[in-house]
Amino acid sequence: MPKSLWSKDPSVLLRVDSGFQLADVDPNATPGTDISKKEGKAMLRKQARTLRRLQGKLFADSTVGGKASMLIVLQGMDSSGKGGIVKHALAGMNASGVVVHGFKAPTDEEKRHGFLWRVRKRLPEPGMVSIFDRSHYEDVLAARVQNLADPATIEGRYGRINSFEQKAMDNGTTIIKVMLQISEKQQKKRLVARLHRNSKLWKYNPSDVDDRERWRGLQEAYQIALERTSTSEAPWYVVPADHKWYARLAVQQIVLTKLRELELGWPQPEFDLKKERKRVAGA
Amino acid sequence: MPKSLWSKDPSVLLRVDSGFQLADVDPNATPGTDISKKEGKAMLRKQARTLRRLQGKLFADSTVGGKASMLIVLQGMDSSGKGGIVKHALAGMNASGVVVHGFKAPTDEEKRHGFLWRVRKRLPEPGMVSIFDRSHYEDVLAARVQNLADPATIEGRYGRINSFEQKAMDNGTTIIKVMLQISEKQQKKRLVARLHRNSKLWKYNPSDVDDRERWRGLQEAYQIALERTSTSEAPWYVVPADHKWYARLAVQQIVLTKLRELELGWPQPEFDLKKERKRVAGA
Repeated sequence: MPKSLWSKDPSVLLRVDSGFQLADVDPNATPGTDISKKEGKAMLRKQARTLRRLQGKLFADSTVGGKASMLIVLQGMDSSGKGGIVKHALAGMNASGVVVHGFKAPTDEEKRHGFLWRVRKRLPEPGMVSIFDRSHYEDVLAARVQNLADPATIEGRYGRINSFEQKAMDNGTTIIKVMLQISEKQQKKRLVARLHRNSKLWKYNPSDVDDRERWRGLQEAYQIALERTSTSEAPWYVVPADHKWYARLAVQQIVLTKLRELELGWPQPEFDLKKERKRVAGA
Repeated sequence: MPKSLWSKDPSVLLRVDSGFQLADVDPNATPGTDISKKEGKAMLRKQARTLRRLQGKLFADSTVGGKASMLIVLQGMDSSGKGGIVKHALAGMNASGVVVHGFKAPTDEEKRHGFLWRVRKRLPEPGMVSIFDRSHYEDVLAARVQNLADPATIEGRYGRINSFEQKAMDNGTTIIKVMLQISEKQQKKRLVARLHRNSKLWKYNPSDVDDRERWRGLQEAYQIALERTSTSEAPWYVVPADHKWYARLAVQQIVLTKLRELELGWPQPEFDLKKERKRVAGA
């Protein structure tokens, strides 16, 4: 195992700051670390315990009135590995404290409301971690490329997203927004694989290939979204994702860093510890 | 690793059938297997992959209109290890397809409704696994022992629970009801440990000891509930739980067996596979 895993923390290295250009990101790179795939996978498993402990503190804190919670937004092209992040990067977490929401094309009922309506209902309760597999950002991504709303409406959404997220943060929610960036070549490889494995076929949708034809347009929509909604309090992280192990490790590290920044301890008992020890011993 | 893990499947061995006596269960036993703790823990990890695959099929099936889902009800005295079941026995599952609900004492709003109101809202959607950490059964357990409702009301609840569960099964939900049975001695050990670990103190509630004083009463309430609500379609399983590794392995096995009984395959594609392979290759 390498002495130092990260030469620089991915929560700094992969953060979208002003001047960021999505086109400059190399999906095949592994910024901040020079470990091997094997070491990376071992590290992922090893750190799962730390993740569980920190998440446990977040949860425990809410039982004594703490308001802190966490929202992890996952975006990326089809087959970029969003599901794998949930399965592997965040796998150490206790399921009792995690809720995963997959957002698909809005239903008829959802369409009758504003685009944030269905998302607002899924914000995390205190102590909880909510994971969005796709999110309200589709309403400025897919919506933009496929002209699902008129341009002025879409223009207005960036600001509404920022206010919406600001309000959530004011309520104690830490927001981590992750875009998994894969190359066209890697995506083709994954889609081909999906079409050759019986257990993966159901994940394939012919429209995935249509999205592929809209690649450039979608990347442009991402660039705009990243520019307008990466704020200092709720920044975006663009994670190179051609190497699944790297993307998972980087996301795990960002979540670890953000949980640590909450500086939560274990709640102190409100009961008389000595007395209760005696009571249990005698019961 | 032993050649045959189970001499008899725990879904048969631990099932509550007519004539069952809770008092006859030895919480320290490990029925159906003679493997060691170490082997048991290794087996638990190994079978997590199988669990994930079977759960994946359940989820995938719902994407082509399948209605099957699963509800796992966890009951047991305080510190019997319900949380550990979620963490360890069911750990292989993909979080996207699992929702855990912890039921505490009902809120004022919940009290204004019937006791099944808050539970009904948490039944699993098609393809999903819902886990109840405590459940509607508290309304015939704690409620009975602490006289939280008048006796006639409580008497009426067993039948209402059975109809409620029957309706859920008619909608495609497989119900697995697990009671983790620990000994008084083991519980004392765990409560003492809880009071000596900083990271566990928040889980301790002085009322845990009150419950301890109501041990016999609660066990009687369990006996009645098991008798009246263990049906052939939705039986109870009483799992000896003094050995955590055994309880986890047994519950994992019951869930595996029940998932297998659904006999779900991977959905067949509705698109033209050959054509799509060609399209992807050319895109």
